[in-house]
Amino acid sequence: MQRKSFAGMPCPIARGLEHVGEWWSILILRDAFRGVRRFEDFRESLGVAPNMLTRRLNSLVEAGLLRRELYCEHPPRHEYRLTERGKDFRPVLLALLAWGNRHFPPEGEGVMLVDTESGARIDPILVDRHTGRPLEPGSYALTPNVAASVTTQPTLADMPRRGKHAGSNAASPRSARSPAQPDQLKDR
Amino acid sequence: MQRKSFAGMPCPIARGLEHVGEWWSILILRDAFRGVRRFEDFRESLGVAPNMLTRRLNSLVEAGLLRRELYCEHPPRHEYRLTERGKDFRPVLLALLAWGNRHFPPEGEGVMLVDTESGARIDPILVDRHTGRPLEPGSYALTPNVAASVTTQPTLADMPRRGKHAGSNAASPRSARSPAQPDQLKDR
Repeated sequence: MQRKSFAGMPCPIARGLEHVGEWWSILILRDAFRGVRRFEDFRESLGVAPNMLTRRLNSLVEAGLLRRELYCEHPPRHEYRLTERGKDFRPVLLALLAWGNRHFPPEGEGVMLVDTESGARIDPILVDRHTGRPLEPGSYALTPNVAASVTTQPTLADMPRRGKHAGSNAASPRSARSPAQPDQLKDR
Repeated sequence: MQRKSFAGMPCPIARGLEHVGEWWSILILRDAFRGVRRFEDFRESLGVAPNMLTRRLNSLVEAGLLRRELYCEHPPRHEYRLTERGKDFRPVLLALLAWGNRHFPPEGEGVMLVDTESGARIDPILVDRHTGRPLEPGSYALTPNVAASVTTQPTLADMPRRGKHAGSNAASPRSARSPAQPDQLKDR
């Protein structure tokens, strides 16, 4: 299958998918969160061909989501552990889990998220960490941002507004921007 | 590329990926949220081959995430709109966006989420809709759940606890469950 690389695109969704945008990779991460660490256990859980599994595990290690650790010296045996970057993928999996549960219920028994203390069912939603406001259509927007490579990050006071660059070329019309650049993520 | 179908697996992540588990499909959904509706606009935004785009759009329509709507009768022309199921995918994209932004910052200008009213940067996190508690490792678990096909849904009072079935065969040992069934999604 041919696929264009999106690594050069500014969209963080595309940049993220560059590293985990494979079905198998996402299911490997799911299993890693469940505590699966060893090649044979991944293989058994996923029913995936060994060469495919090797390829996906290697690419997740290269992308910095898993790390390889020696657990036996003679013979040398490795297991795969989530890195901080890999652990940080958890909200994506949970959002996918909630969506899959809601829209594609299984024929038989399924699974659901519950609070470990109360046992009550959990319905995960996204909110802003600072204000607690739910991210609903119209409540948020995507704006251009000077990347982390620039040493002086914008402060809250001079935060760029929608349709303006931060600190450079602020007068350039929005319509001149490439259609490949997302400026909103709303329901239309 | 060979891929095993996960449609029969109880995991909602796998069931969800069954319908959107293609890089292109996720980027098509991203564009749909940005307001892209027409074939040529998707093609231009994504730089994807027309036959691939047709295939992915069709599969998203079949999966009920997009619907095809006539916008011109002579000649007949269609556009693609998000369904409710498609709109509900938004948290997955936003979680992916936040993760991509955090871990794969671009070389040049990037994008960031801001509050439309205050202009302040948004840092999305997952919380439980009912309690507002953040979903952190250890605060939640996955339990078996009798699916929606069963008419009597469990109430909060008789909500199944971890490792028990709801209403049937509650004594069956957890260890007898298939390793393909996720029971937790924690950092290990």
